[in-house]
Parts: sequence; structure tokens; C-alpha cells
Amino acid sequence: MSFMIRAAVCAAFFLPGLGMAQDAPAPASALSRAVAEADNRQPAIPRPEQEATAQSKLDAFVELTGKRPNILIFIVDDMGYGDSGAFGGGEMIGAATPNIDALAAEGFKLTSTYAQYTCTPTRAAVYTGRLPARTGLIRPILAGDQITQNPWEGELTVAGLLSDAGYHTLLTGKWHIGETEGMRPHDVGFDEFYGFYKAQKEYTQDVYEMRFPDLVLDPDKRARYEAIGSNNDLVYGLADGTTETVETIGSITKMAEADTKLKDYTIQRIRELSEGEKPFFISHSFMKVHADNFASEAFKGASASKFPYRDNVVEVDAHIGEIVATLDDLGELENTFIFVTSDNGPQMDSWPDSGYTPFRGAKGTTWEGGVRVPGIAYWKGMIEPGRVSDGLFDLMDLFDTSLALGGVDASTLPSDRYWDGIDQTSFLLAEDGESKREHVYNWLGAQLAAMRMREYKAHLLVSLPQEKFLYIDMAAVVPTGLAPWLFNLYIDPKEEYPVGHRMNAWTASLGAELKAHGATFVKFPPKDLGL
Amino acid sequence: MSFMIRAAVCAAFFLPGLGMAQDAPAPASALSRAVAEADNRQPAIPRPEQEATAQSKLDAFVELTGKRPNILIFIVDDMGYGDSGAFGGGEMIGAATPNIDALAAEGFKLTSTYAQYTCTPTRAAVYTGRLPARTGLIRPILAGDQITQNPWEGELTVAGLLSDAGYHTLLTGKWHIGETEGMRPHDVGFDEFYGFYKAQKEYTQDVYEMRFPDLVLDPDKRARYEAIGSNNDLVYGLADGTTETVETIGSITKMAEADTKLKDYTIQRIRELSEGEKPFFISHSFMKVHADNFASEAFKGASASKFPYRDNVVEVDAHIGEIVATLDDLGELENTFIFVTSDNGPQMDSWPDSGYTPFRGAKGTTWEGGVRVPGIAYWKGMIEPGRVSDGLFDLMDLFDTSLALGGVDASTLPSDRYWDGIDQTSFLLAEDGESKREHVYNWLGAQLAAMRMREYKAHLLVSLPQEKFLYIDMAAVVPTGLAPWLFNLYIDPKEEYPVGHRMNAWTASLGAELKAHGATFVKFPPKDLGL
Repeated sequence: MSFMIRAAVCAAFFLPGLGMAQDAPAPASALSRAVAEADNRQPAIPRPEQEATAQSKLDAFVELTGKRPNILIFIVDDMGYGDSGAFGGGEMIGAATPNIDALAAEGFKLTSTYAQYTCTPTRAAVYTGRLPARTGLIRPILAGDQITQNPWEGELTVAGLLSDAGYHTLLTGKWHIGETEGMRPHDVGFDEFYGFYKAQKEYTQDVYEMRFPDLVLDPDKRARYEAIGSNNDLVYGLADGTTETVETIGSITKMAEADTKLKDYTIQRIRELSEGEKPFFISHSFMKVHADNFASEAFKGASASKFPYRDNVVEVDAHIGEIVATLDDLGELENTFIFVTSDNGPQMDSWPDSGYTPFRGAKGTTWEGGVRVPGIAYWKGMIEPGRVSDGLFDLMDLFDTSLALGGVDASTLPSDRYWDGIDQTSFLLAEDGESKREHVYNWLGAQLAAMRMREYKAHLLVSLPQEKFLYIDMAAVVPTGLAPWLFNLYIDPKEEYPVGHRMNAWTASLGAELKAHGATFVKFPPKDLGL
Repeated sequence: MSFMIRAAVCAAFFLPGLGMAQDAPAPASALSRAVAEADNRQPAIPRPEQEATAQSKLDAFVELTGKRPNILIFIVDDMGYGDSGAFGGGEMIGAATPNIDALAAEGFKLTSTYAQYTCTPTRAAVYTGRLPARTGLIRPILAGDQITQNPWEGELTVAGLLSDAGYHTLLTGKWHIGETEGMRPHDVGFDEFYGFYKAQKEYTQDVYEMRFPDLVLDPDKRARYEAIGSNNDLVYGLADGTTETVETIGSITKMAEADTKLKDYTIQRIRELSEGEKPFFISHSFMKVHADNFASEAFKGASASKFPYRDNVVEVDAHIGEIVATLDDLGELENTFIFVTSDNGPQMDSWPDSGYTPFRGAKGTTWEGGVRVPGIAYWKGMIEPGRVSDGLFDLMDLFDTSLALGGVDASTLPSDRYWDGIDQTSFLLAEDGESKREHVYNWLGAQLAAMRMREYKAHLLVSLPQEKFLYIDMAAVVPTGLAPWLFNLYIDPKEEYPVGHRMNAWTASLGAELKAHGATFVKFPPKDLGL
């Protein structure tokens, strides 16, 4: 049994001949309610009634307004599941988040929203609707990386598909999925880009003596670092190739103000776009609250905690509030689907410059603390206020859901590759809608580390700290032994008490599910970018 | 320095000559904003403006209605901080709590509410307004305990004081602070009692073969256990001494239905009392969700998780909803101050029959997981809806706050003993009220284990599990070494990263605060019941 699971997981990369389940679009096991519409599509739970309800609601909207809805996705960087009040933090940790909390209270709180284990993989997954293990974007791109193969070659993005369907598509803020020509947001589907190619962390290295004196104050190391050519620029770019440097961020002070510029730009463009004919798709991707955090002038000490991380949470919350208020002022709130999330769990090796998760683990692990993120879907008049659901939602589902909202028929997408996202429009729009997602796969680089199904989580690889109080990033990644470690997240949300032997009845099914997932990599071989 | 702290802590019991701070009602250190009104009163932060605001609000209420407000305190047994949706759980852990969540959303959510480390100490503290270390009720009373000294002798209770002031006082449900004559609720101030003397856990032992086969199926052990005379009776009692056994709970099935009877009784009495002249003080003390949990017929499988603990959380939530709805129907909601809380953190050695806390530790420890509990204050029309505060609230403050609401002047209380509660009426009623509490002391039996001030927590004794995955109850209690372990709960709510050496500027002050607390035990010697 354990051999089969392990083999199924390895099948993707090492055992191409194994894939027993590769021709079976039916449920892979007794455990699964999900069926695949095609062999290149993630199986989903059929919910025909709620789909009909949601479709007619959406059709009525389009008929009434004469337009497809705007789509606005807020991706906060490295914000913990528990940072906002709506998800258990807020005042409790010294940083009130009234705007995020209001969106949750007046919208739909999704308590089982999943990201990938780090930044680049999550963003790539959201924009491509495909697992990082398929596109090859399996880990963060780092300063100095020699990327010889353009990860975007042959890939489609939600931005490009919506642009083709009549949307104006804009990425404001952090990109972090390539920075040379052909790999920039405005090269791969975004009509417009205003932001930074890299993580804030990287562009702080050469200006922050206190944190990196060894790098910054040693002339030789500094020269070598600068030779990498780290790009700290705030860049403006258009799909026609126009690319301008708006400003070079060369100081902590400027860095602290960067998100204000991003917020101002998104607000300015929303004002302008609301006067045009096209609906918009905007990914407002905060640079904050990634370490290193520095508070802006306006928000220094704004949190009760006074720590820069928490001040920046307060700033992010205020920016979300201001952008949403702009939509309201313009009469666009009823026309705009809004989603709020983070790209992964809190980063703990920068502590105390870190977020809060109630769960085990952190960014860089596939424990819940690494991959479970806040998720709020808000659409005034279209999503019933005050809803809460633990139904599974993978951030990749934003790809398919955005296409559906934008009127793009996903069945017309190329059949030569595997699509991992699921259209969750009906989950969100039907008043009693339930998730169509049965599985969330938690990959750690090129290895499948865990899978969540319903309230169960099965681990094949776990990150274990080697000493008490050691930062989670110092954990060793080890296989779980003869059988997966199985947790019931309803009775054990902190993943402390394995229940494998209480769950014998389900273990074979879980193995079959993992095997079926592995087989998709055999049938549709993944890219290897050498990352 | 470390010697001084340790000595101050020990002063209460071992060094009666030390107490340097014993005559000083002024702040004990630069860190403290609190001053003592008298040397037998817990120092509190003066907030004269909000007090005036709250007092005039309360006066206006009394003038308008011609009555003091009703007071209804819900104490759930062993419910975790995170069990309800309002405190981060709910749907996320497979047990929605819409009624508790609504009280939080429409009331005042107190994210830093503190109980004692276990049941009896918390309940004793709430009813007496005094720390268990003073009254001697320092640990749970257990089946078979030989209690030679009546802990209630010479003690006053909030129930008795309010009864004298014209209230009808009722305890429905769990008592667990003595069961022989002189120690029963109706002996110590409650006009009326309808409930159980003991913890549910104890009265399940002799009926639950699956959990205790060694006790139940071995005739010798069973006989010895039964000889203890464990009392499983649902009892009705009056202050005049009337005591009747309503029903003997002799089966799991009856046990599962016990809370329904309690809920029905509270509702019946609220209906009757609302027609009388007297305001009421009701402590509705659930038997659930203490292990062992068995679902009632009506709630079996009612939670998404289907586990009995979670089903029982759903039942408790429904009971709260039904009782609150009754008040609403009777037009008494505007006349009733409601508080919802738990008596300690989740009990983990009964897992999976356990609650959820996002914090470190569990019941039986003074980590946040053991002592931090949900706190919701709700009073329609009198407490501003939607408030959230991290201001400190000790459940002992319910003693003083209830007296203030009931019009009892606390300065008339005996001066021969120390009072640990603080009147928090102004914190709760003034729209922008802040907590008057500067310190929360976390005692572990007869030892002061930790203290919270503002967002800081200093540990003198900690419970450390001896192995990974070992139940928290199997932890060893060890001193923290030369200096207290200091945590900043805003940046580290899970108490993982000690910051003692980052906080040198404050450490001496914290030592002085601990010393001042110790000195109160010198001046007002504690009782020792031999528990």
C-alpha cells in the first residue's frame, strides 16, 4: 500500500510507465465525489442545480448592465491566515483590519482557501490555472537566477484570455514571475503593468544596512551583489512593449511608500476605466507585508502593536478600504467581483517581521500554516452577505472562475495540457452554493507533499523543526514513513494528532486519489525549467 | 534581579517578612498605569471620563425602566478560545456557531478574556471576585476528595450580594465547588439552584464502559468507586434549604440530554421572572462541552464534523440562541446584560473529545491556550454593536461589574480581605471605553506561574511537553530559569519566541509588579484548604 502511494507520487517524474489510472476520468476511489469533464481537467464535484441558479443570476446581471463584471483580486504578500480580524487576528494581535473584516462580514468568508507553499508558485498558479509542478515555476525566482527557458512560453494567462474577450487587464504591484523581455506581465497577457518585478525582500537587500551589514558594508560582497543587477524599479509597461521606469526605489523611505503609489495608481485607473466601455480585470498585488517591512509615514505606529509588520497590515487594510470605497463612489461596487487573499502563509525566519497563522508550520512548508490563506469573495448584490464556508477553494480556481465571469468558455482552452483550476462561480454566487473542489494538492517544489480531501489531510512529506523554538524554515523535509500522516482538520486543525490507524477504511481510497493525481503527470508531462 | 522576582512570588507562602511593596497603593513600577483605591483592592487604570459616561448611561437606564438590569452569564465548560466562528473556528473546524457569532457581531468581542487554568478555580473566582490562591479553591474538586474545611466559610458571593440587593439569583447547571450542605449553591447566595454539583466527566465514569472498562467492568474497582458515593443527580434547591433530587442521571443517553433540561429550566424561569418585580442574575453554566461528550438525540450529527464534541458545541450555541430569543420575545433583551465565556482552555488529554485553541498549551497550563477564553458582552441598546477590544478582562471582573450593574457599592465590602476583581462597567458601556485592568495573574494551583500586562506575558513556571505529540497534560511544570520567559503576544500570540533580552528596559518593572502582587498575599494571608 505505502509503496503504491509513493510510487504514484513518483510516477510523475520517475516511473512514466506506471500510471494505471491515467485513462479514467471517473472518480478515482470510493472516497471521491469528483468526476472529470475531460482527461485534461481536474475532477470536480458535479453540482448542476446550483450551477443553473448561478448561471441565471450571472446572465441576469449581464443583461441588466450590458457588460461582464469587473474582477478585482487583492493578493497581499505573505499575510498570515490569522492576520485579519475576520480570520481570528485583528485586534487580538494588535492590528485592527476593519475593511477586510467588513468585506468578510458583508461577503463570503472561505475558511479553506489554499495557496501554494511560496510566492512565485502561487502567482503562477493563479494566472495560469495550472499547478507549478506542470509549468515548472516550482519555487520563487531569486536575484541572480539564470533562467534559460522562458516559463511563459506556450502558457496562457487569465489576463490574456480576458483581454482577448474584451477586458482591460491590469497588474498593479508585485509580479515576481520573471523580469526580462518575454517574461514581464505586459508580455504575457496583461494590457498594462504598474509595479515591481521582484519581491520587496530582494530590493531591500542593498539598502538595509541593519539587516544585511555583511552584504552591504563589505565592498567586495556588495559589488558582487550589485553585479547581479537587481532591479528595484517601479516600472510602467504596456502590452505594445512600451516599458518605462517610473522611479527607482533606492531607500527604505521610498520602499515604505511604494504601496501608496500602487494604491493611488489602481484608484486612478479604476476611475478612468469606469468611464470606458470595457470591464476590467485588476490584480492588485501588494508589495507589503513581505519582509522587510517598513512603515510608511502615514502608518508609522498605526497599529496597536507598533511593529512595522502590523503597521503594514493596517496600511494594506486601509488601501483595500480606499479602493473599495472608490468603486462604491463610482457606482461600480455592484459591478465588481472582489477577492481578497494572500499568496502563502507567514514567513517566520524574518520574525518578528512576520504574520500570524493559528496553524502548524509557515511559508515554505505544506503544513496548513504554509498553504492555508484567507479567502474573501465579495460582490455587492450578487454574493449573499455573511456567508461562511469551509468548502475547498484553491487559488487556481480564480483562473477558471474569472474566465466564467468574463464569459470565456473554458472548454475552448487547448487540450494538449492539464488544467488544475475549477470554475467555482456557482459555489460563490448560488445562495447555498457548495464547493465543487474535492482535492487540494500541496506540492513542495517538484514533490507532491500532501493532499487535502474534505476535512482530511494526508502528508507524504513533512517539514519537522529539528529543535524546540527553531524557526520553521530550519526544518528538515522528511518522508512520513510507511504510510501517509493523516489528520482530521475539523478535530485537529493544528495537525498534531495523526489518525491514520483510525481511518483504515479510507486509506486505500486516499492512495488511489494520490495515484490518480500522479497519473495526470504521466499523461501530460510537466515542464522542467531547471529551477 | 531573578532572585527578587522569584522571592516576590514565593513571598506569599514562604517569606512573609519580605513584602516591600505592601504599603504602597501607588503604581508598583514605571510600567504600570494602575493605582489601587485601597490596599485590599487590585490596582486599576483610572478612567474617570469613561466612567462618568457609563454611569450616566446606566443611571438613565435605571430611571427609564425603574429597575436594575438583569444579568445573564453563560459559562460553557471547557470550550476552547477558538471554537466559535467569532473567535476563529466555527465552520473552519466543522461546527458553525451562528448564535454566539451574532452576539459577538452585535455586541462587544473581548479577545483578551482570561479564566483560571481549570474549572473550580475559575468558577470560584467569578463568584467570589477573589483569586483561587486566596480562597484556597486552587484546583478542581474531585470525586472522593475529603474536604474538611468548608471553602465558602466567610466568603461572599456575587449571587448573595445581589440577592441582598433585590435580585433573584439562579444557578442553572454546573457548580463543582462543593456538594455537601453548606457548600451548595443555594447555601452560598444563590436563591435557587437547578443543576449538577459535579463535572459531567465525573458522573460519566460509572456508566461509560468504553472509556473506563478498567473501572467499570472490574467488580472490585467498581465497588470501591461506588463507595465514594459519586452524585450524578440533577438537583433542585432553594435558599431556604429545600433540596430535591429531580432525576438521577444513570445513562449516557440521559447525560446527553442533561443540557436540554437546563436550557428548558432557564427559559421557564426567565418567563416567570420577567413577570415579577425583581431583576434576575442567572449563571447558566453548561455541563457541555466537558468530556465525555455525547450528542443529544436532537443534535447527533448536527455539526459538519460529526464528532460528539462538535455536535455539542452546536447544541450549546443553539441553547444560547434559544435563551436569547426568549428574552427578545419577552421584551427583556434591552434589560439584560449578557456575557458568554468558557471556564478554561480546551482539555486535550481527552482528544479527540476536545476543543480548539489557536494558542500554545491547553487546560491545566498557564500558557495562553489554558487561560485565554472567549468573552462576549452583549446588551442591546447599551453596548455599542460591533466593538472589538484586546483590553484585558479577567472573568473575576464579572463579580465587580455585576455588583456595579446591580447597584451594590463595592466600597462597602469587608476590608479584611483582598479583592481581585475590577469593575469594568465603563469599559463595556462607554462607546470607546478601554479596559481598566493592567494585570492578569495566571496561577497554577498555589504558585504564581505567569502574568500578563498589556501585550506582554511573563512566565515564571511553564508546562513543557516532554515529547513531540505528547498530550499537553503530560507536560512537566518547570521554572523558567534565571529570568522569566517574556513573550509579546501581539507579534507572537503562540508564545514561541521569548523576547526577554530585547525587553531589558521593562524587565525590572515586571519584577516589581510581580513582587507587588506577591506582597498582597503577605498583607492578606491566603486560606489553605489542603487541596
